[in-house]
Amino acid sequence: MDFDGRLFKQELKKRKEYVDSCLERYLSETDAFPPLIHQAMHYAVFNGGKRIRPIMVMEGALLAGGQPETVAPCACALELIHSYSLVHDDLPAMDDDDFRRGQPTCHRVFGEANAILTGDALLTRAFEVLTQNADLLGVEASRVLKVIGKVARAAGSQGMIGGQVIDLDCEGKSVDYQCLQTMHSLKTGELFRCALQAGAVLCGMDDRGLWALDEYARHFGMAFQITDDILDIQGDETLIGKPVGSDEKNQKTTFPSLFGLDRSQQMARESVKICLKSLEGFDQRADFLRSLATYLLQRDS
Amino acid sequence: MDFDGRLFKQELKKRKEYVDSCLERYLSETDAFPPLIHQAMHYAVFNGGKRIRPIMVMEGALLAGGQPETVAPCACALELIHSYSLVHDDLPAMDDDDFRRGQPTCHRVFGEANAILTGDALLTRAFEVLTQNADLLGVEASRVLKVIGKVARAAGSQGMIGGQVIDLDCEGKSVDYQCLQTMHSLKTGELFRCALQAGAVLCGMDDRGLWALDEYARHFGMAFQITDDILDIQGDETLIGKPVGSDEKNQKTTFPSLFGLDRSQQMARESVKICLKSLEGFDQRADFLRSLATYLLQRDS
Repeated sequence: MDFDGRLFKQELKKRKEYVDSCLERYLSETDAFPPLIHQAMHYAVFNGGKRIRPIMVMEGALLAGGQPETVAPCACALELIHSYSLVHDDLPAMDDDDFRRGQPTCHRVFGEANAILTGDALLTRAFEVLTQNADLLGVEASRVLKVIGKVARAAGSQGMIGGQVIDLDCEGKSVDYQCLQTMHSLKTGELFRCALQAGAVLCGMDDRGLWALDEYARHFGMAFQITDDILDIQGDETLIGKPVGSDEKNQKTTFPSLFGLDRSQQMARESVKICLKSLEGFDQRADFLRSLATYLLQRDS
Repeated sequence: MDFDGRLFKQELKKRKEYVDSCLERYLSETDAFPPLIHQAMHYAVFNGGKRIRPIMVMEGALLAGGQPETVAPCACALELIHSYSLVHDDLPAMDDDDFRRGQPTCHRVFGEANAILTGDALLTRAFEVLTQNADLLGVEASRVLKVIGKVARAAGSQGMIGGQVIDLDCEGKSVDYQCLQTMHSLKTGELFRCALQAGAVLCGMDDRGLWALDEYARHFGMAFQITDDILDIQGDETLIGKPVGSDEKNQKTTFPSLFGLDRSQQMARESVKICLKSLEGFDQRADFLRSLATYLLQRDS
């Protein structure tokens, strides 16, 4: 499969717009009572995110022979969890960021207390929305329960939250590769893995297929993180929505700081190669995932 | 049924100890990786809580003809959610409390960032644990899903979190009865209602029974809040674990501040009377719930 950047961006945009329309449906109306928290939840979710996790949920469903619509609640739930984690990460007690994708962060707009509660509410809402895969869309209840367990583990103290704890603990310390790798695989990797599996599980994929998707997701997570670190050095501030060089300024250990830029780029290319190899058992329905991995090597945001 | 205070306290203690043993089982080991977050989760949960919500889950199961063991994961989940809400409520950006039940609050021990993450992790863990009602204990998956939806709504932006948003918004403002009532029914009432219904739903109680339990839970929540406000005026600091008079000092609107002490006590008695009336259709298996409501009128902590 040749990579057609222009075609891929069109496909990505189409999927992003579909996810956004689902999010509008599954997030409470902004005028629900009390209005303040619902406005803040809306603000946190609709801030220009790339929607990679929900898209992965839907691609997993497609590869299992299902339809994106069937797993839309699950897809939205993963994005709500991602959004809550950004709101809490940005808090003054955490990374203390004033801007996110060029917009004032949630606590800058709604105050610190409301930002904490907004994150809590998005996380809680994610689990409510997850149950709707069964109620509204007829997925077998036992499969939905299995996915809820997976999501909670991926987002929990031994997954995403665990990774953030390690990240905070590493601040200002010199960190080795092993530690960097553990931190990233928990902080961002687990949720990618969960996203790609969740849609597939809901649509009944077999274990062999799930294993292949997991291989893809783990290396996708790795390539995503490495290219994220590279963007922080080489990126265009107007496209990435934050100042270039922030990792170096904050004395953060990154792939380039440990291995240099050339070797990091090489590592990203190798990870993407494994992503593509893991999809060999799938037909052209996996083409979007193939392009998504390839695209990481030329991402600009 | 006559109320025997000594016997009731024995029964309460027995139930509390059983809940504690379940919590030990369903909370991750304190040595799980990364250790810091698991220690903090443990600290936040094992801090002398009365375990009223999990006990309600188990009583609901009993009244539906089930066993406490069958709903133990759900019972624990409700306590994890209650615990997370206390950790976040105590944060500097929220109520800024240094002590909770006489112990330093989570952020005083583990730092603010870790306390935010500890709350997040407890909330996430609650939903993981909820799925175990089916996996481990054979409850029908569709019933478990129904309960997960209920729990998420009760704890979410239109439930407990919504109540906390209103509470923060009311700080220093003069508040009328309508607003006070809405705030409390969301902030504490919804979780009581959910607790009593959850165990009953998991064990297949019919709608008529659920309606009666809901009637009990709503008035229990009311009596609980009124007596809580009264304790803040008349209580023994060593028993309630916080300084007496803190509501007045913080200019908080309370039932006594709106209605006076005598009328508030009268309102609590009336609520308890409705609690007892709502249980008329149940046999002696509801005796503990009857005592629990009656006990509110003489609680000392």
